[in-house]
Amino acid sequence: MSAAVADSQLETLRDEIKQQGDEIRLLKANNADKDLIKEKVAAMNAKKALQKKLEGGDEAEKPGKFVLKCPKGTRDYGAKAMAVRESVLKIMTDTFKRHGAETIETPVFELRDVLLGKYGEEGGKLVYDLQDQGGELLSMRYDLTVPFARFLAMNKVSAMKRYHIARVYRRDQPVMTRGRYREFYQCDFDIAGTYDSMIPEAECLKIMDEVLDALDLGEYTIKLNHRLMLDGMFAVIGSDDSQFKSVCASVDKLDKEPWEKVEKELINERGLTPDAAARLGSFVRFRELNPDLDNVAVLDQMMLIPELAANAKFKKGVEEIKLLLTYCTAFGVSNAVRVEPSLARGLDYYTGSIYEAVIPNGLPGVADDEGQPVGVGSVAGGGRYDGLVGMFAAKANVPCCGVSFGIERLFAIIEAKNTAEQAAIRTSSTQVFVASAQKNLLQQELKDGVVKLRNTQSREETTVKLDELESTLTRMLAA
Amino acid sequence: MSAAVADSQLETLRDEIKQQGDEIRLLKANNADKDLIKEKVAAMNAKKALQKKLEGGDEAEKPGKFVLKCPKGTRDYGAKAMAVRESVLKIMTDTFKRHGAETIETPVFELRDVLLGKYGEEGGKLVYDLQDQGGELLSMRYDLTVPFARFLAMNKVSAMKRYHIARVYRRDQPVMTRGRYREFYQCDFDIAGTYDSMIPEAECLKIMDEVLDALDLGEYTIKLNHRLMLDGMFAVIGSDDSQFKSVCASVDKLDKEPWEKVEKELINERGLTPDAAARLGSFVRFRELNPDLDNVAVLDQMMLIPELAANAKFKKGVEEIKLLLTYCTAFGVSNAVRVEPSLARGLDYYTGSIYEAVIPNGLPGVADDEGQPVGVGSVAGGGRYDGLVGMFAAKANVPCCGVSFGIERLFAIIEAKNTAEQAAIRTSSTQVFVASAQKNLLQQELKDGVVKLRNTQSREETTVKLDELESTLTRMLAA
Repeated sequence: MSAAVADSQLETLRDEIKQQGDEIRLLKANNADKDLIKEKVAAMNAKKALQKKLEGGDEAEKPGKFVLKCPKGTRDYGAKAMAVRESVLKIMTDTFKRHGAETIETPVFELRDVLLGKYGEEGGKLVYDLQDQGGELLSMRYDLTVPFARFLAMNKVSAMKRYHIARVYRRDQPVMTRGRYREFYQCDFDIAGTYDSMIPEAECLKIMDEVLDALDLGEYTIKLNHRLMLDGMFAVIGSDDSQFKSVCASVDKLDKEPWEKVEKELINERGLTPDAAARLGSFVRFRELNPDLDNVAVLDQMMLIPELAANAKFKKGVEEIKLLLTYCTAFGVSNAVRVEPSLARGLDYYTGSIYEAVIPNGLPGVADDEGQPVGVGSVAGGGRYDGLVGMFAAKANVPCCGVSFGIERLFAIIEAKNTAEQAAIRTSSTQVFVASAQKNLLQQELKDGVVKLRNTQSREETTVKLDELESTLTRMLAA
Repeated sequence: MSAAVADSQLETLRDEIKQQGDEIRLLKANNADKDLIKEKVAAMNAKKALQKKLEGGDEAEKPGKFVLKCPKGTRDYGAKAMAVRESVLKIMTDTFKRHGAETIETPVFELRDVLLGKYGEEGGKLVYDLQDQGGELLSMRYDLTVPFARFLAMNKVSAMKRYHIARVYRRDQPVMTRGRYREFYQCDFDIAGTYDSMIPEAECLKIMDEVLDALDLGEYTIKLNHRLMLDGMFAVIGSDDSQFKSVCASVDKLDKEPWEKVEKELINERGLTPDAAARLGSFVRFRELNPDLDNVAVLDQMMLIPELAANAKFKKGVEEIKLLLTYCTAFGVSNAVRVEPSLARGLDYYTGSIYEAVIPNGLPGVADDEGQPVGVGSVAGGGRYDGLVGMFAAKANVPCCGVSFGIERLFAIIEAKNTAEQAAIRTSSTQVFVASAQKNLLQQELKDGVVKLRNTQSREETTVKLDELESTLTRMLAA
């Protein structure tokens, strides 16, 4: 092994050992399954042994020997993880199917040209490229939305309600303990096509509500905002288009950081004047500063600010959100929805409504090392992106809106919940297992025309005649 | 666009247009769904237009313009293809689960070191590498077996019955019309662990039988052979170990090519003497040359050849296969199983029994341009590979055997069968669709307390009172 390869492996190993240690401490704090902890400790110790070996530069090592591990930021899903995953995905797919959705699959990599420029500068850096082995230049998909837009444009599909559950790839700094991987599942539901205003959005919100309700994760809130309202606010404070993305990124931090810190960032790093920043704060914090107002009142009161009311974009955004709120009432989801002028989300391609579901109070029964509830944050988000398909086929006008579920985070939450509730996870569907407990036992039972039934939970054993086996089993399984 | 990029795109385009043409002719010959043909023709024409543009070197073209396509050898799975895929996979997963299997998922790429050398020289050339972007060197998985072995070794799992359905990657020359892609699904079932001899093999054969039976594809045969029998035959003719793989590759062609051609290849390209080749022919064609013998008789008669009987490996192979045949009888699958001494299969890692399911007579109702039945060939295969896990962890002794279904071929067969049977494919699960047929119609119906029900097949319409809606729908759906 070359020294450079060993160094890079060492670095990865150290990262991983640290993360595994964090994870084990978290599991212990939550009284997780002992077998699971044992398994994790064994995996960490194996890595520590390797680390020692690599640090010692064991020269006696056989050539061709290598570290046995998954690529950095990726993981195996064992049988338990898959069982949880399947139960969560069943809730998702049942919901999508109930809403008439179809599903598709696209290649895991795309022509690099297809992905280029669609994720913005930051996203572009995180894309995995395939090696040029002759032929086309390829990159791994970064999300499922851009491939969907490519699919619609290429196949000239002008209307489709589709869901897509698959893995995507980002060369980000992984934080396994917080469920952040380089290879991770996304679960997207999108409605492409021209419909009456806000009808597809209402269905997306309804689906978020149905899924989160079925997952039974405690209280959640679906924050709602509009790209045009953000555009309007930024125009009013005199911010120009070139600042849009970076200002959004700062504003988006308001759910985690105090205004003072965000304000400093807006002035020192984003180039806003102190006046503009203060003005922007009064807009994006409107809900926070007026805690007694309901959804419609927040919008109405903001429209009393003359400059906002005079901005055509802001006005249009408000009108659309108000219409959406009436549909939310009709669909019975208005209680979960909260108009939030600071919601910006990262992606540049949103053109209309944007929304994000959060579990604000952390997970019931799950706490960190200091006994504090573990905050969960965003578990789903989406919005309208009317321009994306047109980037692939200039003549195609296929407006889209959709929602993406933070499925890895949801897996992690359900796993933690199962641990907290000491839920038994079945990894196989076997109800009756046929076995010969000793050599040649089969022959004796055959002769007697009987079989021995053993309840593996109660360890109770009964001998049953062969012709009564089926009825006995049926009765026992029904019990 | 650079000239080189345009040239490579042109070459790909021409390949694809030719393949699409072939596919369209095949679809027409089989009276396929008109919409499907129309769709395919439109896609081909779009490509032809692009070809013209690229050949003309359209200089007026905007910069950044690119060909809208999937990477070479990959495809989108649209809603119809996914519906077929889901129905086929449901049969597979139901069968695996009935046998008590669990499922896992592994990263789509592995450390290059993990894959290196596991696929032999030929396979190694076909592996997709990821670009070195700093950090670890990664490659896309080529099958699901090597990742499974890595999973077992890394997680110190000594026994597991698992299935894994996922896509794998090979930079092979794609032939889309014959279902050969660079990105394609594999569906594997494997049993890892130490069991009584031939018990896991019997379960694999039983599973192949259950799946093929449930898929209802007409007659099939499961060919059966043993690595040690092949080793024995090769030893008897004086072939050395270095020739094993290449001689196997030639022998494996016997199901498609006449002996005379294979014999020539063995002498001219594989370096066998004419005597050795003739001798080998008499062994591997033993079943073909003795068509009246049954499975056991083939083995018994071969054991009457003194040199084979004297070879310890050959003898052990025969004993194992005979034991396996008794289990096949107990499992009721012996009619489908056929001992076939010429079955060699490609992979070097098999150490015991090898098997392969074929549909010999082509697909009922599906014919090529000249009205000949389309041969289907191998649809599943596998065997025992006791050494693979040990390549990752020297101390681990985890014997394995398994079966891999040629799921892409099965998808293609089922799609062709659906076309031949003019089966309607439902791509959504929607049974009742709620719609407002005209603007403001909703308000009038609300006032009257009624809704209009329309049967979209019969186009029959009835107006139903709201409080009778549920019972009416239940009745209509049950009918």
